[in-house]
Amino acid sequence: MKVICFGEILLRLSPAAGKRLVQAEQFDVVYGGSEANVAVSLSVLGHESWFVSRIPDNAPGRASLGALSRYGVRTDNTIWGGDRLGIYFLEPGAGLRGSQVIYDRHGSGMATLQPGMINWRLVLEGCDWFHWSGITTALSQSAADATKESVLIAREMGIPVSCDLNYREKLWKYGKNPSEIMPEMMRLCTVILGDPGSFDLYSGVTGTSDSDLLSAFAAKFPEVEYVAMTRRAGLTATHNTYQGVLWNGGKACASAIYDLTDMTDRIGGGDALMAGLIHGLGRGSGYLQDTIEFATAAAALKHYVTGDFNLSTENEIRGLMRGNTGGKVNR
Amino acid sequence: MKVICFGEILLRLSPAAGKRLVQAEQFDVVYGGSEANVAVSLSVLGHESWFVSRIPDNAPGRASLGALSRYGVRTDNTIWGGDRLGIYFLEPGAGLRGSQVIYDRHGSGMATLQPGMINWRLVLEGCDWFHWSGITTALSQSAADATKESVLIAREMGIPVSCDLNYREKLWKYGKNPSEIMPEMMRLCTVILGDPGSFDLYSGVTGTSDSDLLSAFAAKFPEVEYVAMTRRAGLTATHNTYQGVLWNGGKACASAIYDLTDMTDRIGGGDALMAGLIHGLGRGSGYLQDTIEFATAAAALKHYVTGDFNLSTENEIRGLMRGNTGGKVNR
Amino acid sequence: MKVICFGEILLRLSPAAGKRLVQAEQFDVVYGGSEANVAVSLSVLGHESWFVSRIPDNAPGRASLGALSRYGVRTDNTIWGGDRLGIYFLEPGAGLRGSQVIYDRHGSGMATLQPGMINWRLVLEGCDWFHWSGITTALSQSAADATKESVLIAREMGIPVSCDLNYREKLWKYGKNPSEIMPEMMRLCTVILGDPGSFDLYSGVTGTSDSDLLSAFAAKFPEVEYVAMTRRAGLTATHNTYQGVLWNGGKACASAIYDLTDMTDRIGGGDALMAGLIHGLGRGSGYLQDTIEFATAAAALKHYVTGDFNLSTENEIRGLMRGNTGGKVNR
Amino acid sequence: MKVICFGEILLRLSPAAGKRLVQAEQFDVVYGGSEANVAVSLSVLGHESWFVSRIPDNAPGRASLGALSRYGVRTDNTIWGGDRLGIYFLEPGAGLRGSQVIYDRHGSGMATLQPGMINWRLVLEGCDWFHWSGITTALSQSAADATKESVLIAREMGIPVSCDLNYREKLWKYGKNPSEIMPEMMRLCTVILGDPGSFDLYSGVTGTSDSDLLSAFAAKFPEVEYVAMTRRAGLTATHNTYQGVLWNGGKACASAIYDLTDMTDRIGGGDALMAGLIHGLGRGSGYLQDTIEFATAAAALKHYVTGDFNLSTENEIRGLMRGNTGGKVNR
Amino acid sequence: MKVICFGEILLRLSPAAGKRLVQAEQFDVVYGGSEANVAVSLSVLGHESWFVSRIPDNAPGRASLGALSRYGVRTDNTIWGGDRLGIYFLEPGAGLRGSQVIYDRHGSGMATLQPGMINWRLVLEGCDWFHWSGITTALSQSAADATKESVLIAREMGIPVSCDLNYREKLWKYGKNPSEIMPEMMRLCTVILGDPGSFDLYSGVTGTSDSDLLSAFAAKFPEVEYVAMTRRAGLTATHNTYQGVLWNGGKACASAIYDLTDMTDRIGGGDALMAGLIHGLGRGSGYLQDTIEFATAAAALKHYVTGDFNLSTENEIRGLMRGNTGGKVNR
Amino acid sequence: MKVICFGEILLRLSPAAGKRLVQAEQFDVVYGGSEANVAVSLSVLGHESWFVSRIPDNAPGRASLGALSRYGVRTDNTIWGGDRLGIYFLEPGAGLRGSQVIYDRHGSGMATLQPGMINWRLVLEGCDWFHWSGITTALSQSAADATKESVLIAREMGIPVSCDLNYREKLWKYGKNPSEIMPEMMRLCTVILGDPGSFDLYSGVTGTSDSDLLSAFAAKFPEVEYVAMTRRAGLTATHNTYQGVLWNGGKACASAIYDLTDMTDRIGGGDALMAGLIHGLGRGSGYLQDTIEFATAAAALKHYVTGDFNLSTENEIRGLMRGNTGGKVNR
Repeated sequence: MKVICFGEILLRLSPAAGKRLVQAEQFDVVYGGSEANVAVSLSVLGHESWFVSRIPDNAPGRASLGALSRYGVRTDNTIWGGDRLGIYFLEPGAGLRGSQVIYDRHGSGMATLQPGMINWRLVLEGCDWFHWSGITTALSQSAADATKESVLIAREMGIPVSCDLNYREKLWKYGKNPSEIMPEMMRLCTVILGDPGSFDLYSGVTGTSDSDLLSAFAAKFPEVEYVAMTRRAGLTATHNTYQGVLWNGGKACASAIYDLTDMTDRIGGGDALMAGLIHGLGRGSGYLQDTIEFATAAAALKHYVTGDFNLSTENEIRGLMRGNTGGKVNR
Repeated sequence: MKVICFGEILLRLSPAAGKRLVQAEQFDVVYGGSEANVAVSLSVLGHESWFVSRIPDNAPGRASLGALSRYGVRTDNTIWGGDRLGIYFLEPGAGLRGSQVIYDRHGSGMATLQPGMINWRLVLEGCDWFHWSGITTALSQSAADATKESVLIAREMGIPVSCDLNYREKLWKYGKNPSEIMPEMMRLCTVILGDPGSFDLYSGVTGTSDSDLLSAFAAKFPEVEYVAMTRRAGLTATHNTYQGVLWNGGKACASAIYDLTDMTDRIGGGDALMAGLIHGLGRGSGYLQDTIEFATAAAALKHYVTGDFNLSTENEIRGLMRGNTGGKVNR
Repeated sequence: MKVICFGEILLRLSPAAGKRLVQAEQFDVVYGGSEANVAVSLSVLGHESWFVSRIPDNAPGRASLGALSRYGVRTDNTIWGGDRLGIYFLEPGAGLRGSQVIYDRHGSGMATLQPGMINWRLVLEGCDWFHWSGITTALSQSAADATKESVLIAREMGIPVSCDLNYREKLWKYGKNPSEIMPEMMRLCTVILGDPGSFDLYSGVTGTSDSDLLSAFAAKFPEVEYVAMTRRAGLTATHNTYQGVLWNGGKACASAIYDLTDMTDRIGGGDALMAGLIHGLGRGSGYLQDTIEFATAAAALKHYVTGDFNLSTENEIRGLMRGNTGGKVNR
Repeated sequence: MKVICFGEILLRLSPAAGKRLVQAEQFDVVYGGSEANVAVSLSVLGHESWFVSRIPDNAPGRASLGALSRYGVRTDNTIWGGDRLGIYFLEPGAGLRGSQVIYDRHGSGMATLQPGMINWRLVLEGCDWFHWSGITTALSQSAADATKESVLIAREMGIPVSCDLNYREKLWKYGKNPSEIMPEMMRLCTVILGDPGSFDLYSGVTGTSDSDLLSAFAAKFPEVEYVAMTRRAGLTATHNTYQGVLWNGGKACASAIYDLTDMTDRIGGGDALMAGLIHGLGRGSGYLQDTIEFATAAAALKHYVTGDFNLSTENEIRGLMRGNTGGKVNR
Repeated sequence: MKVICFGEILLRLSPAAGKRLVQAEQFDVVYGGSEANVAVSLSVLGHESWFVSRIPDNAPGRASLGALSRYGVRTDNTIWGGDRLGIYFLEPGAGLRGSQVIYDRHGSGMATLQPGMINWRLVLEGCDWFHWSGITTALSQSAADATKESVLIAREMGIPVSCDLNYREKLWKYGKNPSEIMPEMMRLCTVILGDPGSFDLYSGVTGTSDSDLLSAFAAKFPEVEYVAMTRRAGLTATHNTYQGVLWNGGKACASAIYDLTDMTDRIGGGDALMAGLIHGLGRGSGYLQDTIEFATAAAALKHYVTGDFNLSTENEIRGLMRGNTGGKVNR
Repeated sequence: MKVICFGEILLRLSPAAGKRLVQAEQFDVVYGGSEANVAVSLSVLGHESWFVSRIPDNAPGRASLGALSRYGVRTDNTIWGGDRLGIYFLEPGAGLRGSQVIYDRHGSGMATLQPGMINWRLVLEGCDWFHWSGITTALSQSAADATKESVLIAREMGIPVSCDLNYREKLWKYGKNPSEIMPEMMRLCTVILGDPGSFDLYSGVTGTSDSDLLSAFAAKFPEVEYVAMTRRAGLTATHNTYQGVLWNGGKACASAIYDLTDMTDRIGGGDALMAGLIHGLGRGSGYLQDTIEFATAAAALKHYVTGDFNLSTENEIRGLMRGNTGGKVNR
């Protein structure tokens, strides 16, 4: 499949394992962001994956694209612009000390994106899937407008659209609530990934059980074909459990529950799952259970790869689905 | 509160995670020590915290003071002296391999401290609390004498005094046993932190239960107002459980038990608890349970910060007390 | 004891913890290999330990010998030869992501070793034990022939011989199966270390229980005096359980089962056990249970030392046997 | 002397030596900025040095103040504010490849500073010197206005004022030229440090020789008592020559010329000189030659200290003035 | 231009600056090789640059292609094959200690390349330039044959061909001398880069002056349109002088001589020059002097970039040509 | 030759290049010391080299011996003892900033060595050369006495003795001047290495020219057969010139002068020269010029190897003597 992932890529700065930000004498340099992470996963899974964004033409900007190219993602349609590359500081947690994120993305190329800057009809020509996330709409009114433009054109061109709701409490500072922006855009999506909290915040959809919630969702967004949810239990910063659920309007399939002990880097877990969904749903609706099992196994493996990107191959993911939980040295 | 912490700060040298000392090609450089660690915690908790010591005027000595200033501790009353900064080599354990400490502090500024070198009346002027630990008395006769001098003057000036017994088997090499030195100094303290083993070694106080032990302690040391104990179960080098107990002469309050999996750096856990006690007891005796809960939560978080110092804020500590066990990324 | 360990030492290249090989910007440099690891363990346990091999006379080759000398292993009988030092890339796993090994040892000094190159009568003069492993026979026909030569001469000289079967699926590429090579060499051994899978692959010996298996083994290899087996349960890449079993032809003793959480580096665990066996069996057959307890505790500790080599001392190993599971800081 | 340095402190991110920004997998973390660098130098030279700024209350902000406290600078009068800490990316040059700076300081606490935010009368109470630089006026109109406010109050309180013109071509983006902002503020200064290029750009003062230039300057700014200039010849990125000139309205003294081969880190060279000027001029006007020799030697040594801060002591600086050009190991 | 660069990419392993190979505890990981380096330079200069090779489908192999993609080089026509990725160990020299290279490329994908494996007609379709080097012909007879095949087809398709002679004394181990292999292939080239030593070794062409040498060359290889030579004076490992010469059959233009002090990484200097030649000659023969000035300036800058790749842009190269020798911080 | 080198080995702690000690967050770990460095050089040059010392039996002590074994030095005769391993902090200089050494060796195994502790008759049995240095006599009276004991026995056994005067201003703190200790020991030496300053300080020998100085030396110490001197001009911390002189009682031969630009690590330069002298003089007195050329070339190369040890081989040293000044990559 040719897939377009649209969003912001950021410079991620984090101290060495176990250190707090105020102690750092060095930062590990990683480039990532929700939609970029999906693009890399899809490239590693064998798809023709494109990342579209607006990036300043300076060293950090070029380095961010290089980080994507390194794993096969095409970036030719990304446009130069904006004064700075967005940054986020990540203080990775451990045990009882949770991870902290400080966003420093004000004034970035994507935050100052305007409708009309990207020639979407050209970009989307011949593509099989379009993916965006709620993060972009949280940056600024103009970024939200530009995102809406992209989704509308994709739908118009008959391209399936997926959205990861991705609620970030520290964003949404431009005077709008998600509920004023997101519902009309969610309506245009084929697949939506979220969690009960974001369904409520974005669209007021709630439910005391999964089935209630999904029914309420279906009632409000009849156009959406698939809804996926993740259930993460955060026991500590380095020990979570994780499960995915996928609903096709009719039935909801739940994946195996993964016990994620000794986690390495949880950033990008949901993005790995999103990529797994796109990978699976592209084959058709008959693979609902396999799709959510695959996507969740991909997400589980992401927790053990440093950086934002999941670099797990289809073989490795299917290995975990078959029960290879890492205890054997492959030699 | 203006708090004076008196003791030795050391240069700590440790190999990278997982490496043994004999393998090391690099050492991480950390400056710390029991009383210095208390001082940093108190500064981070918002107090005016002073560290008083005797330090050689050379690069390692100045660097050790810089490490304290970096986190807001005042060091102006520390005096220059001694031929060398004390050193300890730390080989951090992992799993079934325990941590090793090699002390190399002979001849340090504190080991050669003599009574009269520090002008305690000036140093203690206007201060609200004085803290020392049993480590200093373990260094040399003159260091023990100088410590006694400081405690006597503090009591004379009506300043509450806290002591962490801090028994270190590898010290006490100058021909005295703790029981010959410590009891008369413990008698002058408002708060004593220890564990059953050190109570016995230092003062012959034993008991088959906590209440027996504390009764025996009260009988022997009627002047001491608060006794705190820590109960650590060392399952492995990277998995402990931890609980604090605080007794005010009448009742004993026990904190929640923390399950410390995936520990990062356990050095300074007790010091973080000590600082929490001083922080809490400064508010008065009505907060016994809150004080030990806070102090123990502070100690629990310390296990997840690299280096000797606990850099956890009051917000973070209270977050853990409310059940935020690190499983959520704050973004 | 003077012990000769014969085999290949490799340059091991691995990325930093949590990183995959494709991400690496730096490799940690470790030298190791099954037989070399046994040699280092024996040296650390106080034996006169020699490593015999064939190594190219270039910087990596000399560095590999230096790595052994650093821990007291004698390498004077290793001969120069071959175009290159064998390499293996190790991607250390974590949690659900298993470790990967890529061998790059084609054309190495050992792979091109020929019978007659090493003067075994001279090398083995005055030595008390000879150790080899199935890895060397997996490299090439000539290496297998040269190994057979060494074992035959050792037996002829009346020296006890131990063998670690060490099956590696990614080797054995020269057109022979282990079952065509190994049985006649196993027959010459005093001690064999393996696991049920390798017994079957190497010699067709199987059994539904340990006693069945060992009986079948005894029937096929009546000359072998001791058989040791390891039982490893690989829960995840960083959490295994581990037990050793030692059989003296009559009874089989099983060690305590170790719960290996938070593992640091599992490579060389079996080699640490092998060294423990040689260390114990050298004292005579009366110490069967102690030998397997010691050997397994040594192996358990190896999982917490970075690199191929176990650097645990007899004191540390016996400490673990007495229940010191690492939870206490030794200070 | 009690000296107030007012300006912006930035997070500096730079790759390892020899690497370009686009290659970086890690950034060294340094905090610095022209006025902060002056403050650290003065603290190391024994003065009571204060840094006043506006900084966000987040981890990078707090870390920047900790970096100053570590070397004895007082930061109590710095106020919290702004959304982000300014950042600059530094690609250190080498040989024929020059250093690159990318500023990313838009929207920082200092860029959004407004007049009235800092209580200057309180801050400047009892202080002996006030230092600012042209960089702050290059950030935004409001920052320029707030700087003017500070200088006016300092003069009103009779405090000597120094200014480093510090022209940065990549700043000055808010619609004003330096010549519209700086002259009236320069007029209020006791000491001005600049170079011929900045004199021209800021105030139209030019001259074909030093004496012409200084006469022109005196004619335009009769109130200024001292003018200092630096003459740097940039042979390559790691080889410069460097000389300082100081003029007291009457005569101009030039320092020795330093041949700076094998430079380590040239950022902050001028700031080290500025601190040396303040240090020397505080002793009175009789030391003109000594002052410029000292200031220039301090600047020369700065080129051999990693980071923005000069950590050279008075002894070390005077050692260089006496001809100790580094060729002897002090042991 | 669309340019095809054909050759081997290697994993380069080198210790930290100042360390020798036998001391290394870590290796820096760089991927590079003469032809790959040319490809990256051309991509950075704005060309559509393709790298064609034969690479094993394992982690090091995929990482090597990722390293090229990161800087925009297309690798789609590289084929999977061979047992291993070639390796070279680089011990970077300093001062009087020269750099050492140990090749470990036996059995690599390129060393075992056979004619017919790459579909050259497809690969070369629509391309404007084809580049190869003498290194490939030094690997094995089959690699030399496969290279000849590629050059023949390129010529047949009317594509200009460039060759860097690149003599490596430590290669050429398969029983042929360069003079038995290279002359007939040199005859097919448009541009040849070499030095007097390699002209002699490869083709017996010698001369006591440049003009003699070039006349002799022209007599022997009348088909070659351009010959370029580099003149490097190796004063020390970190101080060289460097000059390029370009001859178009008629006149020879020499570039400025660069004084390369404080060199960072000299590997790839000639490749940077080669890329500059291709870049310049693509514009036509009118730019002979500019072409060699540009190419040599590019090569000069390469000496200050860590790794094999020159990452200097056209702007930066033209800056050096205009005299910006790095002495100014661009801020 | 079998050579015994007797002295102290130290743990050397130094920050990363360009950093000062007060800035360090990591220390590079090197083990070295004047006599140990000589021992390593001799081992690398092919001699049977033994290092004899007194070392504590702890991790740093064992690591120091491992560092020597790694390069082939035998350490079996070193005895365990003393409370601590001596330490020195090295702040490597650069350019105009000189290197700083802080000794922290009080109370080390060697400082507390007593005569009679080492069984010198056994240790020196069968050896061909004995080497010591003036550093040991600077540690304590008992260390000086023990050194005298060793030299006396060596002479008694007819073994040639060499001494490096090695004056260290920061040692000699036990109440004696070198001139009270050294002359009687110098009298027992075959070879003495020093410089004019140390000749004067140790024995009052001075001279306005080399020949005057050597005549005066000969008059005072008629027993000494060879005197070597080094002439180092310290232009900057990273640029020195260096020359050796060797005198055999009759004529004085001077080596080539080396221009040491871009120095990496100058510690151990004199020790490399000393080893070269022992290597050369062992062949007999006919090689005076070759000996000093070889020794000085060895010393020159040492300046380009990180750590205390010179790892240059005879081939590399003779290469430099033939004019290979590092400018060529050996590939």
